[in-house]
Amino acid sequence: MKKLLFQKLVILGPGLLGGSIGLAARRRRIARRIVVWGRRPEAARDAVAAGAADEAAATPAEAVRGADLILLCTTVEAMPRIARAMRPGLARGALVTDVGSTKRNVVRRVGALLAGRATWIGSHPMAGGEREGLRAARAELFEGATCIVTPTSDSSARGLRRIREFWEALGGRSVVMSPAEHDAVVALVSHVPHLAAAALVNVVGRENPAALRCAGNGFRDMTRIASGSPGMWTGIARSNRTEICRGLGKLIAELQGLARGLTDGSGETLRARLDRAKALRDEMRSRG
Amino acid sequence: MKKLLFQKLVILGPGLLGGSIGLAARRRRIARRIVVWGRRPEAARDAVAAGAADEAAATPAEAVRGADLILLCTTVEAMPRIARAMRPGLARGALVTDVGSTKRNVVRRVGALLAGRATWIGSHPMAGGEREGLRAARAELFEGATCIVTPTSDSSARGLRRIREFWEALGGRSVVMSPAEHDAVVALVSHVPHLAAAALVNVVGRENPAALRCAGNGFRDMTRIASGSPGMWTGIARSNRTEICRGLGKLIAELQGLARGLTDGSGETLRARLDRAKALRDEMRSRG
Repeated sequence: MKKLLFQKLVILGPGLLGGSIGLAARRRRIARRIVVWGRRPEAARDAVAAGAADEAAATPAEAVRGADLILLCTTVEAMPRIARAMRPGLARGALVTDVGSTKRNVVRRVGALLAGRATWIGSHPMAGGEREGLRAARAELFEGATCIVTPTSDSSARGLRRIREFWEALGGRSVVMSPAEHDAVVALVSHVPHLAAAALVNVVGRENPAALRCAGNGFRDMTRIASGSPGMWTGIARSNRTEICRGLGKLIAELQGLARGLTDGSGETLRARLDRAKALRDEMRSRG
Repeated sequence: MKKLLFQKLVILGPGLLGGSIGLAARRRRIARRIVVWGRRPEAARDAVAAGAADEAAATPAEAVRGADLILLCTTVEAMPRIARAMRPGLARGALVTDVGSTKRNVVRRVGALLAGRATWIGSHPMAGGEREGLRAARAELFEGATCIVTPTSDSSARGLRRIREFWEALGGRSVVMSPAEHDAVVALVSHVPHLAAAALVNVVGRENPAALRCAGNGFRDMTRIASGSPGMWTGIARSNRTEICRGLGKLIAELQGLARGLTDGSGETLRARLDRAKALRDEMRSRG
């Protein structure tokens, strides 16, 4: 039996990530009690019915009362609003984290709201996918997933240790970096790829929509994430726009290099770029 | 029991595709006898040992003697050479097709070599993946795969019907288009996406290689094909360079549009592009 890490765990926003945290935390007995709040009351009731929480609360403040771990699992734009709404109920010493896909913005804004009231350290579990909502939630979502934890110079060492223990207890692999470092890394491996997937689909849709019917598994795999929520991704992308614009610029330059390689004499520069990509990608595969 | 479509089927080049054709054709009893030739004699022997053919031949000309269906399964660059080498053995009335990823070039060059000697119609089964060689071959590879068949105005109607029957008998879904149309379609759904996958990996590798360790499933799915053979893909890309350059230009323009959308006032233009991508991609999903 797993060690009980927390007495009362609160999930604010029972979507794919919030719901999966609830399911995983119950299965792994990480908290004595799990309370959920959702903007729509039926969402919280559904989460309880799905086994992702023990009880539903009517407001964020009511939900967090007496909690020792609170997870913000809404969209990144909504997090400051929810953080403000929960403040009246916060127990001193409570640990607060989140699951947002961008960190510099969120860590600063939520941090300002919670300063002196709770221990706040941002997180980003790199799990999810193109399916959304509680119905897509599953207890295994975090198994083997990289869970980035982003302390600042103000963060308590104990809080950081507890947050890492939490993600590891859910099956994840915790990695620590600063919010700025996170945003740079995640722009490269998540946000820019997401926009590239959308761009690929849009180009085919515009140039030759019938071609989509001929697409093989390679194209399907590459563009699956383009089915993700446009609203959520607009919010994520805009909240990390500086790093994403930088990354898009680098991607465009690399694509221009590949285009030049198509038409040079020998094909060697194209071959060299494909060799490098294969070596890098094979190394990822060898790590599982 | 399936109908015996051919008496002697010949596979020239027992790699992933050639090997999978042999395995599928034997399992589905499509031909009475399957003969294989490979540039390296041990490759042909391995194919026989793996159950992908009944016997190995020493030369392309020997392999094709008396054959009613011949499949060129080498790289696109090697096909004209193999077509020339097999000519002395070709039976009049033999049907010849291939599995090459580009068609305009190959159909014209092989067609010129086989004119008046055999019925030649190009094919491109959209199956495969980043793994290569006989060891990755499997009898199910073509199940549900789009198999594009590219007749020209000279092609025999009977030959076209037989080639389509062949791919359908392997479990594929045959689609007919001209070689030029094929190259335009496949540039959009296969060649440009392949280069984009390589570009994404290279950008991360150059900007922040440690970030690759944080990549989630989205990035893995998007870049898996970057592990494909650089040599083979250099050949494919250069043999379809005009269409690919066009497609890369469109992709770059779309990425620039997304970058502009990141910084405009409301986020509405970004949202509109992501909405369109989701609608297109969801439609693909609903088709399975």
